Amino acid sequence: MTLKGKLIIDSVLLEKQAIEELHNKSYYGRVKGGTLEISLPESAFLIYMEKIRVEFEEREIGFEDFFLMASSILKNFELLYIVYKDLRERGYYVQPGVTGFRVYPRGGHPGKTPAEFFVFVTSERIPLLISQLRLHLETVENLKKRLVVAIVDEDSDITYYEVKKASPSGTNVSGLNKGLSKASLLEDRVMVWNQDASLALQKDGFFGKPMDEGHLQLSLIESCYLLRKGILEIENRNHELLDFEMFVKTASSIESDFMIKYAVYETLRNNGLVPKTGFKFGTHFRVYKKIDDMIKLPHSDYLVHAVEQSHVFSLQQLSRAVRLANSVRKEMIYGTVDSRVDFFIIGRMRL
Amino acid sequence: MTLKGKLIIDSVLLEKQAIEELHNKSYYGRVKGGTLEISLPESAFLIYMEKIRVEFEEREIGFEDFFLMASSILKNFELLYIVYKDLRERGYYVQPGVTGFRVYPRGGHPGKTPAEFFVFVTSERIPLLISQLRLHLETVENLKKRLVVAIVDEDSDITYYEVKKASPSGTNVSGLNKGLSKASLLEDRVMVWNQDASLALQKDGFFGKPMDEGHLQLSLIESCYLLRKGILEIENRNHELLDFEMFVKTASSIESDFMIKYAVYETLRNNGLVPKTGFKFGTHFRVYKKIDDMIKLPHSDYLVHAVEQSHVFSLQQLSRAVRLANSVRKEMIYGTVDSRVDFFIIGRMRL
Repeated sequence: MTLKGKLIIDSVLLEKQAIEELHNKSYYGRVKGGTLEISLPESAFLIYMEKIRVEFEEREIGFEDFFLMASSILKNFELLYIVYKDLRERGYYVQPGVTGFRVYPRGGHPGKTPAEFFVFVTSERIPLLISQLRLHLETVENLKKRLVVAIVDEDSDITYYEVKKASPSGTNVSGLNKGLSKASLLEDRVMVWNQDASLALQKDGFFGKPMDEGHLQLSLIESCYLLRKGILEIENRNHELLDFEMFVKTASSIESDFMIKYAVYETLRNNGLVPKTGFKFGTHFRVYKKIDDMIKLPHSDYLVHAVEQSHVFSLQQLSRAVRLANSVRKEMIYGTVDSRVDFFIIGRMRL
Repeated sequence: MTLKGKLIIDSVLLEKQAIEELHNKSYYGRVKGGTLEISLPESAFLIYMEKIRVEFEEREIGFEDFFLMASSILKNFELLYIVYKDLRERGYYVQPGVTGFRVYPRGGHPGKTPAEFFVFVTSERIPLLISQLRLHLETVENLKKRLVVAIVDEDSDITYYEVKKASPSGTNVSGLNKGLSKASLLEDRVMVWNQDASLALQKDGFFGKPMDEGHLQLSLIESCYLLRKGILEIENRNHELLDFEMFVKTASSIESDFMIKYAVYETLRNNGLVPKTGFKFGTHFRVYKKIDDMIKLPHSDYLVHAVEQSHVFSLQQLSRAVRLANSVRKEMIYGTVDSRVDFFIIGRMRL
C-alpha cells in the first residue's frame, strides 16, 4: 500500500498512518503533531521504492519531477540522496541532518542505541577547509561519535573516509652532545665535514644521509633542529656563523612553508619519532616509531603532511595521499600548525 | 700516483699526463690543447677518490674547501655532484653538460657508442615547467636519446624518472544514435531519466553510472561529450535546452579547468579509449583500453592527468602521482593541452 504526502517548502508531510508504517518500523522521518515529516532525500528514496506518493499543489509528482524540484530546493540534494541511498541499501538506519547524516551502528536503531557515526557529505569538487574539518571533528568527538566524510566523485561513486585525532609517538631518544661540530650551509642542504660527528649524528639521532664515508648531508629541517638544540654550529659558505633566526630566514627563502614544516618536525622529534623526507610518497615526512639500525631501515609507520590552520584541501589531493599511504600500509596523518601542532589521521573506511 | 691540476674559473685544468690516465682510460673530461679540462663535479669526485690534487691561486685545496668553492661557483653544484657520483658508482660513463649529463649505456663509452640517456638534474624544491620538460623531451628525442629526470630530495636521495612521448589508444567504438534522449543538468551532474537510453549509454559507450535501475548519472565531462556528438539533448532544471557553449559555460563555472579536462577527454575517446574519473587515484582520469562488461570492469590501464601548457609541476605532486600509479600497476600519463593535445608518460626508472 502506498502512503500519501505533500511537499511543503523543504520537506514532505505524510498522513498519520505513516508513523506506524515508516517511522516505528523503519525509522524514517520525525513525528510532528499527528503527521510524519520526512526530509527530501528520504522522500525521494521512498518514492523510488514506491512506498509513498507525493503531491505538490494538489498534483501528484513522480520521481523525476520530485528529483528536479528537490535539487532546486536543497543545496547538494543529489549528493545527499546518493549517500543516503547507499547507506540505507547497506542496511544502516540513518537520520538526516543539514550537512550530513547520523548513522546507527549495525543492528542498532533510533531509540535502541545512540548513533555511531556522523557522515559529512561533500563532493570531490568542493574544497575542504582544515578549520572546518577540525570543527566537525571537535563537535563529533564531543558527542562521542565517529566522523566520516563521504566524498561523491564525478562518476557518482562514494568514498568514505574516517577522520580521527591522533597523538603519534615513538621511542627514539637521542643523547647527542651540545657543540658536537660545525657544519656548512650550501645551496639547500647542510654538510657535516667531520667524520666522528657525522657518525654520531647518524647513529644516535638517525640524522642525515652519508655522502661518502666521511661526510654527512643534512636537510634544512634537520640542521635547523640540531642548531636550535645547540648540537651543531652552522656557517654559510663565507664561514659566517648563522644563528637560529638567520638560518630560518634563509631556509624560508628557499622553501616558503619552512616554518610550518619545521613546527611539525620538531613536535614529532620531541615525541620520540624519527621523521625523514616523504618526497617519494609526495608528503612532507615519512616517520619511524623506532629505528635500531640505519643500514637496515625498517618500513616507516606514518606519512605526515604539515598544513597551516588556514589550509584548504583539494579533495583530489587528499584522496591521492590517503590512497598512496594505504597502498604502502602506512597511516596518513596531517599535522596542523596553529599556536600548537595537532595531528589527525585520515583513512579509508569500509562501511 | 696523484695528478695535479688548477682550478681556473669554473673548471679544473689537469697536466698532460692526465689525458692518458683519466681521459683515455676512464673517459673523464675533454682534451683541450695539451691539457685535460674537467668539470667541477668530476673534479670533486676525483679529489674524493684521491686521483687528483687541485690548486687555487698557488695553494692546494682539499675536498671540503673545493666543495664549498664549487658550490659558490656553479649553480646546483651539490645536486650535480650527488647525481654524478651516483651514476659513476653504478658503473656508467658520464659526460657532464650544463643542466645534466649524457650517460652511456652499460658496456658502452665515449668513442665506442653514442650516449643513451640525457639525465636532467633537479631538486625536489625546484618547480618544473611543463613547457620546459617538453622542450627537453623534444631535444633529447631528436638526438635519439632517452630523457631521464633525476630528482634529488631533501634527504639527498635520488629518484630517476624516464619521460617519453605517448600515443595512448584503445579499441572501443560506440554506435550510439544521434538524438538518443533528453537529460537534465542538476547541480554538478546530469541525469538521464529514460530507461532505454540509460541502458544504451551504459552498454554501448560505457558512459555514466546507474543511480538505480532506470536512471543514469553522467558526469559533466561525459554529458558535454554526448551533447557535442548530438547523442543527448540537455536541459537545465527549468527545462531550458542548453547548447554546447552554454553547457561549457556552466561547467566551467563549476570547475575552472573544465575545458582543459574536456580537451583531453575528447582526445582519449576519439582514440578508442574509455576514460572514467580518476578521483580515487587523485588524477583526472583512469582510462580503459577495452571494456567488454560494465558489471565486471577490468583494471584500468592508465591514469591520465590533464594540464595546461603553462602548468608548473610541483615535483612532490609528480612524485606522488607516479608512485601511486605504479603501486596499482598503471602508467602515469600527462595530457598537455595547447592548440592540440599531446601525451607523455612518466615512470620511475631503475638505472
